[in-house]
Amino acid sequence: MEKMSTDELPLTMSFSEEQETVCIFGTGDFGRSLGLKMLQCGYSVVFGSRNPQMSNLLPSGTKALSYSEAAQKSDIIILAIHREHYDFLTELTEVLSEKILVDVSNNLKINQYPESNAEYLAQLVPKARVVKAFNTISAWALQSGALDASRQVFVCGNDSKAKQRVMDIVRTLGLTPLDQGSLMAANEIENYPLQLFPMWRFPFYLSVVLCIFFFFYCVIREIVYPYVYEKKDTTFRMVISIPNRVFPILALILLALVYLPGVIAAILQLYRGTKYRRFPNWLDHWMLCRKQLGLIALGFAFLHVLYTLVIPIRYYVRWRLGNLTATQAIAKKGNPFSTSHAWMSDSYVALGILGFFLFVLLGITSLPSVSNMVNWREFRFVQSKLGYLTLILCTAHTLVYGGKRFLSPYILRWYLPSAYVIALIIPCTVLVIKFILILPCIDNTLTRIRQGWERNSKFSKSLNGKTDI
Amino acid sequence: MEKMSTDELPLTMSFSEEQETVCIFGTGDFGRSLGLKMLQCGYSVVFGSRNPQMSNLLPSGTKALSYSEAAQKSDIIILAIHREHYDFLTELTEVLSEKILVDVSNNLKINQYPESNAEYLAQLVPKARVVKAFNTISAWALQSGALDASRQVFVCGNDSKAKQRVMDIVRTLGLTPLDQGSLMAANEIENYPLQLFPMWRFPFYLSVVLCIFFFFYCVIREIVYPYVYEKKDTTFRMVISIPNRVFPILALILLALVYLPGVIAAILQLYRGTKYRRFPNWLDHWMLCRKQLGLIALGFAFLHVLYTLVIPIRYYVRWRLGNLTATQAIAKKGNPFSTSHAWMSDSYVALGILGFFLFVLLGITSLPSVSNMVNWREFRFVQSKLGYLTLILCTAHTLVYGGKRFLSPYILRWYLPSAYVIALIIPCTVLVIKFILILPCIDNTLTRIRQGWERNSKFSKSLNGKTDI
Amino acid sequence: MEKMSTDELPLTMSFSEEQETVCIFGTGDFGRSLGLKMLQCGYSVVFGSRNPQMSNLLPSGTKALSYSEAAQKSDIIILAIHREHYDFLTELTEVLSEKILVDVSNNLKINQYPESNAEYLAQLVPKARVVKAFNTISAWALQSGALDASRQVFVCGNDSKAKQRVMDIVRTLGLTPLDQGSLMAANEIENYPLQLFPMWRFPFYLSVVLCIFFFFYCVIREIVYPYVYEKKDTTFRMVISIPNRVFPILALILLALVYLPGVIAAILQLYRGTKYRRFPNWLDHWMLCRKQLGLIALGFAFLHVLYTLVIPIRYYVRWRLGNLTATQAIAKKGNPFSTSHAWMSDSYVALGILGFFLFVLLGITSLPSVSNMVNWREFRFVQSKLGYLTLILCTAHTLVYGGKRFLSPYILRWYLPSAYVIALIIPCTVLVIKFILILPCIDNTLTRIRQGWERNSKFSKSLNGKTDI
Repeated sequence: MEKMSTDELPLTMSFSEEQETVCIFGTGDFGRSLGLKMLQCGYSVVFGSRNPQMSNLLPSGTKALSYSEAAQKSDIIILAIHREHYDFLTELTEVLSEKILVDVSNNLKINQYPESNAEYLAQLVPKARVVKAFNTISAWALQSGALDASRQVFVCGNDSKAKQRVMDIVRTLGLTPLDQGSLMAANEIENYPLQLFPMWRFPFYLSVVLCIFFFFYCVIREIVYPYVYEKKDTTFRMVISIPNRVFPILALILLALVYLPGVIAAILQLYRGTKYRRFPNWLDHWMLCRKQLGLIALGFAFLHVLYTLVIPIRYYVRWRLGNLTATQAIAKKGNPFSTSHAWMSDSYVALGILGFFLFVLLGITSLPSVSNMVNWREFRFVQSKLGYLTLILCTAHTLVYGGKRFLSPYILRWYLPSAYVIALIIPCTVLVIKFILILPCIDNTLTRIRQGWERNSKFSKSLNGKTDI
Repeated sequence: MEKMSTDELPLTMSFSEEQETVCIFGTGDFGRSLGLKMLQCGYSVVFGSRNPQMSNLLPSGTKALSYSEAAQKSDIIILAIHREHYDFLTELTEVLSEKILVDVSNNLKINQYPESNAEYLAQLVPKARVVKAFNTISAWALQSGALDASRQVFVCGNDSKAKQRVMDIVRTLGLTPLDQGSLMAANEIENYPLQLFPMWRFPFYLSVVLCIFFFFYCVIREIVYPYVYEKKDTTFRMVISIPNRVFPILALILLALVYLPGVIAAILQLYRGTKYRRFPNWLDHWMLCRKQLGLIALGFAFLHVLYTLVIPIRYYVRWRLGNLTATQAIAKKGNPFSTSHAWMSDSYVALGILGFFLFVLLGITSLPSVSNMVNWREFRFVQSKLGYLTLILCTAHTLVYGGKRFLSPYILRWYLPSAYVIALIIPCTVLVIKFILILPCIDNTLTRIRQGWERNSKFSKSLNGKTDI
Repeated sequence: MEKMSTDELPLTMSFSEEQETVCIFGTGDFGRSLGLKMLQCGYSVVFGSRNPQMSNLLPSGTKALSYSEAAQKSDIIILAIHREHYDFLTELTEVLSEKILVDVSNNLKINQYPESNAEYLAQLVPKARVVKAFNTISAWALQSGALDASRQVFVCGNDSKAKQRVMDIVRTLGLTPLDQGSLMAANEIENYPLQLFPMWRFPFYLSVVLCIFFFFYCVIREIVYPYVYEKKDTTFRMVISIPNRVFPILALILLALVYLPGVIAAILQLYRGTKYRRFPNWLDHWMLCRKQLGLIALGFAFLHVLYTLVIPIRYYVRWRLGNLTATQAIAKKGNPFSTSHAWMSDSYVALGILGFFLFVLLGITSLPSVSNMVNWREFRFVQSKLGYLTLILCTAHTLVYGGKRFLSPYILRWYLPSAYVIALIIPCTVLVIKFILILPCIDNTLTRIRQGWERNSKFSKSLNGKTDI
């Protein structure tokens, strides 16, 4: 009998009251939404308000009291108040002593104040146990139940007991708490919801710059040049023809830039003879945004596919082909069939399709829920093996497209080569270096370095090659 | 030493027996599958059965006893029995007293019985602690380990201790428990697995109705009209040409309907001068199914893209173009090139491609795993800013498609305008109102209202503009 | 007052020290990364090392001690050491007694050693409580914070207390622990990260074999045959034309193979008159890889769509169409329009598009995050109802494509029928059998069997049809 009771006791003790009471200071949108949600999840909720009697719109089943009355009802107080109004809390120092204060506030700008709101709160009410949480959840999401945006709730605090209590509440609400350590992390947590795709920024700006450059490059070669020499108005090419040159070029360059940092890292490790030295910062950052680079490249490839497939629908193309055929018919001349030309045209198209297909596969496996299902070896297989195959197919697609025209001096206009010739520089470089790196002699050295061996180390020798994981 | 023991005790006490024993009443598919899964996760399992000796197919390592014997082995009893057979439990009242009874049953129809199965069970065995759980998990999913459908297990119950115990079991089985509060929630939980896309119903029926309407509208204009006046049989147009008019129209209208409720809500808030009044129910419901409307619109846009890209493959199009060219060749007349026409045709296609590209982006970010990775600001940015850009591009695509034909009286047939003219009404209205709403003077008022300011409130003035979150 | 303290105690006791200390043996990549992550999540970390003084690169805030010193600092020791070096632990038997030893090691090959690393460790240090965990997480993922691959940490161990402690740590690090039971599961857990898509292997090899077969079949009919009889070099057809025959054939056959096992299972159940007998192993395995078969089929369908859409861009097609038109113009002969041909061509294309659209929908709903959002009924509706509709549309697409040519003897070359005729065998068989199975009389019997009824069972009669869930 005694065994039985101890067996059950610990996990359920916090439920020995039928309902835990939580106090929420502030009756704004977020406070009310959170209160309603807590009510639905089995908590008893009490609101603290400046004017308890005028707090309409509160969820039924809750009541509004004055701050000090409400605070006495619970040992967890959620502060749904803007930081600017925290000062009134100093009057409640006694009541709040030892209570868990949950700071849910956000700022309007990144690093708006010298210290984070939660740290400021901890200074104001030093005797309370401050926990930062819930700031990443929106009132709308709580209300609608449609938590489309993140379910992740970052939690931090100096008092582990208090933090644990808050994390249990988060879990009960159907959200996912993520412990971020001490209150020093509050600054980062408060900045998080203000961020706008920080990892995408560099890839985005890079592709915008490359886009503009190649657009004007192509405009000069294909619109200005014919206008100057032949007085032909081909401005309409800016709408589809030129974008359809720029997009594949960007897709290819960005895809190559995904694999370039890995190649550079390997060369650095070979040169240094050790993996135990940090990479330069720019390389680290580059490696962390490879996924974003790849996805932007996929976007350009997708646009390239659509722009290519509409070619036969375009008025200009129909007009040109119709004219060609009519001329041929009028001249009553047969147009002999060139098997080599058919081979070339078909191979170029087939390589592009296969490259795009693998590219889409890569994109799908980088979806969080898919990559979460595969183990590390499978993820590496897809992203590295299939990734290089994609790069090879896309580079071959561009090379075959160029075909015999590469060596012809005719393609230079104002000494400018075709844009796709420039686009091939980085991918070809990456592929050539990668090919050298997988030659057995070099690959063996690299593998040993990556397993912890060091070329100029007295330690590694003295350890008989014993390495840790 | 003492510290150590207390440090470890509480989290592990429920494991002080090597294995916890769970009892399952019923040896059907689900009972056996659940038993096997529990066995694999370290529980000891005992089955209760009407005919213990004939219970074949039980997982090895478990045994079948009579109901009362089995019930004595554990304080958790899972009832894998249909509600229709619950009545035998009344004979076991004594044995079941204080035990945790887990109701896993489902019904065949929504609201089949006046009260939920779990509440009925609680009435039958008032001394037991009834918890509703596991009804959303299928036997097949448990058996195959391939939990393709949901891993979420909704749990509810009046006794918090009992509920917590069950939630721990759910977690141990690798599933995700979601606390739904008291046993009053059992009805909703039992209805959940019987639902068939409730949020999709309205968008689906709406699009079916619109689809049928526009299909017959186009049939009258493009098949009946030419047949009546020119005796031309163009019925084959019903297969591709007319769907390819209907699909883009539906995509555009449904996309506009995604943004219309937001615009209506803003006007309502401006008119009322406060955000502290509930929207009408139809508006709330409409706002909650915006995602579904958008995804159906994306489906139509996808079909439109495919139907458009196959145009040059169609026999009819090849025949027409071939005839045109042949006629031109026979007449030995050149067909002059129109730069303005080339501009028009290319812009129209390019706008469509870009619109579709952004539309696909929107679709990808509404995948649960993707939207779960972004913070609230990023989600809003994508769904609102990119969403409006998509709407603008798609509307422009349709406007340019119409081109000069808009003003021509020639397009009226039997006083019916082209279908796309009708399709433009809602998107243009939404865009015009949105444009007015973001004019600085109106936008400022709206922002203040959304931050809690009220036009006709004595309270908001007395509070000196202090607002809660 | 007393109530209060007990209320808080149990959930927070393990936090009564400000920070829990964890010891990590081994200062390799993984050890350091894990240490850094734990530090960030609020743990105090101590490293054990062979050469404490030479352990550079350790995260700041941690220190390296000798193994025995480090082990005394904590009751949880994480072994970030290769299995080959475990033998030194025998010297530490005393210090490690009663400690929790976490084995994080992986092997290089599946089943490399007779017993798992964790079991070997448990034999070496019998007094320690060994837990297997973290082996599925990579150092790179921990470092970068970009846990692109799985967040799932499989945990197993014989001591439940120890396992629970480790699972708490896993949860604190923001990862998802999955309890796999006793240490006997360690072998499987260690093999997991070495697997390379085990469920995809059979579908992949099957499709490669089918691909090669149909490729050569088509090469014989369409390249060798014309070369032998007409001396025409049509080798260029191998690049696009023939793949574009092979891909749709594979898509259709694989899609039919997704639904064939369900049909076989139904026939088996009808024949046996009971569902309480195991299916043969091959059928079970086949049913478990239906999803993979379907996704590969979708891949082929996607390639077929792209290969079809580029048709009008191909040089060969443009040349042929141009020649046709020119010939027509030279002969000054009209080319009469055939409405029935237009109907046929358009229906065939439209059926293909709709089939592909539904196929893509099926693919999207099989994404883990999407299938996780729908309940079981919805999942079944999509995968079964929509799936059969897709199969019907795709089969009809192929049938209409064949059109009148089916019965013509002209299509036989060297007694070989067209490849698509062969492709239709399995889908048509599946559809016909399915059609028979849903005839009311058969469907009723099947439904009763699936609800537990047995044709030749004395038990089922004696139970008055009472069945468990």
